[in-house]
Amino acid sequence: MSTRAPRDASVHRRGGRGRRMGRRPSGSGDTRARILDAARQAFGEHGFDGATLRDVATRASVDPALIHHYFGSKQRLFVAAIELPVDFAVTVPALVGGPPDRLGERFVRFVLDLWGRPEVRPLVLGLLRSAATDPVARAMLRRLLEQGPLVALAGALDRPDAPLRASLAGSQLVGLMMARFVVGVEPLASVDRETVERAMGPTIQHYLTGDLD
Amino acid sequence: MSTRAPRDASVHRRGGRGRRMGRRPSGSGDTRARILDAARQAFGEHGFDGATLRDVATRASVDPALIHHYFGSKQRLFVAAIELPVDFAVTVPALVGGPPDRLGERFVRFVLDLWGRPEVRPLVLGLLRSAATDPVARAMLRRLLEQGPLVALAGALDRPDAPLRASLAGSQLVGLMMARFVVGVEPLASVDRETVERAMGPTIQHYLTGDLD
Repeated sequence: MSTRAPRDASVHRRGGRGRRMGRRPSGSGDTRARILDAARQAFGEHGFDGATLRDVATRASVDPALIHHYFGSKQRLFVAAIELPVDFAVTVPALVGGPPDRLGERFVRFVLDLWGRPEVRPLVLGLLRSAATDPVARAMLRRLLEQGPLVALAGALDRPDAPLRASLAGSQLVGLMMARFVVGVEPLASVDRETVERAMGPTIQHYLTGDLD
Repeated sequence: MSTRAPRDASVHRRGGRGRRMGRRPSGSGDTRARILDAARQAFGEHGFDGATLRDVATRASVDPALIHHYFGSKQRLFVAAIELPVDFAVTVPALVGGPPDRLGERFVRFVLDLWGRPEVRPLVLGLLRSAATDPVARAMLRRLLEQGPLVALAGALDRPDAPLRASLAGSQLVGLMMARFVVGVEPLASVDRETVERAMGPTIQHYLTGDLD
């Protein structure tokens, strides 16, 4: 299978960066990133089941064969696409470091910031939408919630039942995402971020640090 | 048994033409109920998009034509199937009537009871799964959360921002359903009900009655 990029240079530009289409090696990182970006958009709109490699290829302006070259399969592309661009070794200490009684609010703010990033929003939306019906996406979301940042954060707080605390907080975040962004439940869908942070901060605080009995 | 039960009549009026159905077999109420039951199962397993009228017919052991006869379309069947079998005029006062500081816990218990009922569980699961990708199901879930029991409950408490409170609480319930039943996030998916009630009660309490600022 050829690894050469398609010839039509007109479809290869994004964000005004003109790129040469001749020999590939120097641009391969960009191509991979562009495919990931397109995959997040496609998964976000159509879910894992509905998104097609052809659609991803079109959005990324590459030949579908190139996606196979880089990722091997739709599932592996999905796995790569949902990797959060966050270094939790840095994030968790920063979150834990502030005033202890506002930890929940800081975490909600952090999550809303993260979801607000254009490369993250479609990814999380796609994962949620797919998880509702697709077993692969469901397993990924489960892994994210059972082994991801919330677990690291709950663990760093040195309270009993850290895994349960993490999964309770995770359930509220999943619900927030569903209600605010997927289903659009008013007025939660359109109140400003600060309102969400203030209202939901105590919930996350309760789950992570409060008395669960 | 009457050949023109009121519920059947209302369904036919919803068709918009007020058409008469002619003579009905005396078991028509049962048949309708069996179709609804089968629809909840099918929607629960496959979502609105994935469920087929043929599958519903097979589960209900009826001819597909009979589904058309009773419900007219898949969407109208869906609308009828997701109607919660709960009388909120009774439920809300009962919930509000107990000790005020345990309202949240009572509501979580009520919801877990409701979801535990075999005719409700697949219905709610189906609605959630479908809502992730299907606009019709999304609109129904939105309506349930914007005009359903939580809004009645929040309104009965006479606190400011009742709609926001209802949507916040709704987001936690959606998240609980997703995490515990759809995605299976451990340990939340397998802890006993009492643990969920105790842990999540204060959250609903906070949303419905607490200080949101």
